[in-house]
Amino acid sequence: MLHDVTVPLRAAMPVWPGEPGVRLRQEKFMARGDVCNVRTLSMGIHTGTHLDAPEHFLAGGATVEALPVDVLLGPCMVVDVPGDPHVSAAALESRFPAGRPLPERILFRTRNSTGPSPAWSHVDFQEGFAAIGHDAARWLADRRVRLVGVDYLSVEPYGSPEPLTHRALLGAGVILVEGLDLRAVAPGPYTLHCLPLRLEGAEGAPARVVLEG
Amino acid sequence: MLHDVTVPLRAAMPVWPGEPGVRLRQEKFMARGDVCNVRTLSMGIHTGTHLDAPEHFLAGGATVEALPVDVLLGPCMVVDVPGDPHVSAAALESRFPAGRPLPERILFRTRNSTGPSPAWSHVDFQEGFAAIGHDAARWLADRRVRLVGVDYLSVEPYGSPEPLTHRALLGAGVILVEGLDLRAVAPGPYTLHCLPLRLEGAEGAPARVVLEG
Repeated sequence: MLHDVTVPLRAAMPVWPGEPGVRLRQEKFMARGDVCNVRTLSMGIHTGTHLDAPEHFLAGGATVEALPVDVLLGPCMVVDVPGDPHVSAAALESRFPAGRPLPERILFRTRNSTGPSPAWSHVDFQEGFAAIGHDAARWLADRRVRLVGVDYLSVEPYGSPEPLTHRALLGAGVILVEGLDLRAVAPGPYTLHCLPLRLEGAEGAPARVVLEG
Repeated sequence: MLHDVTVPLRAAMPVWPGEPGVRLRQEKFMARGDVCNVRTLSMGIHTGTHLDAPEHFLAGGATVEALPVDVLLGPCMVVDVPGDPHVSAAALESRFPAGRPLPERILFRTRNSTGPSPAWSHVDFQEGFAAIGHDAARWLADRRVRLVGVDYLSVEPYGSPEPLTHRALLGAGVILVEGLDLRAVAPGPYTLHCLPLRLEGAEGAPARVVLEG
């Protein structure tokens, strides 16, 4: 069974403050006699479901085309972890007891996806979303998780004075998948199919993400 | 083993005549004191490796977000077929003897990918590329192949007076993957991972395509 956990890209969707969002512009119209319909696309890199590469927050870091594809395809675990307000190291300690191997790819399903008013059910940007606390980011970085996914637009708590979550995770080579829609999937093991555009020299890329299982 | 058969998206790449190509514009610069690097993207939908949805050539046809994901992930066959000048029904008859089941997903590796001067080795657009002849398109459409991939920018022979290849294949519900780079893969069976952006209301979408096997 396949679960498309990608946010549809459209004009009316929540975007990070200051980001331009998505614009499709039609250039050729069959309705006006053109042989085909053709559109062009413009968008911010961090719109909807997307990857962050190290260069986003680390000067001289790797850009998105250099991310290893083998990390983007393979077994993953969707985990429910309290994000209240954010995922904490204590919550991770409790969810992943010491001595047992940690999944290489973890997608966090927080209160953004559950409850009566999930974050993606709003067209406007939700400042109060659950993210990954700085202590949790260090915890994950120390344990060499290879890929971390979150269910709203950033791994970073909104309004962080410093981007310590991004720096800890990107600095440890963790691939970040932001903007997943995990409302309709249950926690548990899946096979991840996560493919970003092969954009040369970009600090990230929009992606299509599908879970199988 | 994973083979990335996606063309890297960059400013200097061949595009269909009239298409705008790819532009990355940097909006935030760590080198100038911003907390992170941020870029925006603009591009034609049919740049590099991409999918065509029915609405590209069929008025009122399905747009790309409606394509079934299960067709985009699964077993595929990379086949060498003479494209001289274009893949013909006769070549397909000879490659796929009657009475044997046809692969559901076929990626054609033509003279675009082989020989001393493959099409993708040129930065400028190559008008003389091998495509799928109109008779071959009807042959594939009649046999209910679900996905067809080609190794340059269109399934349509350049300069066709009418887009009969597109119409035959899209009209039969065949998903078209154009702009694959098959120079480095051998013919044979693979698992296809083909994920286009989830662009609502678009006649196609750029995609990342990886072969496993």
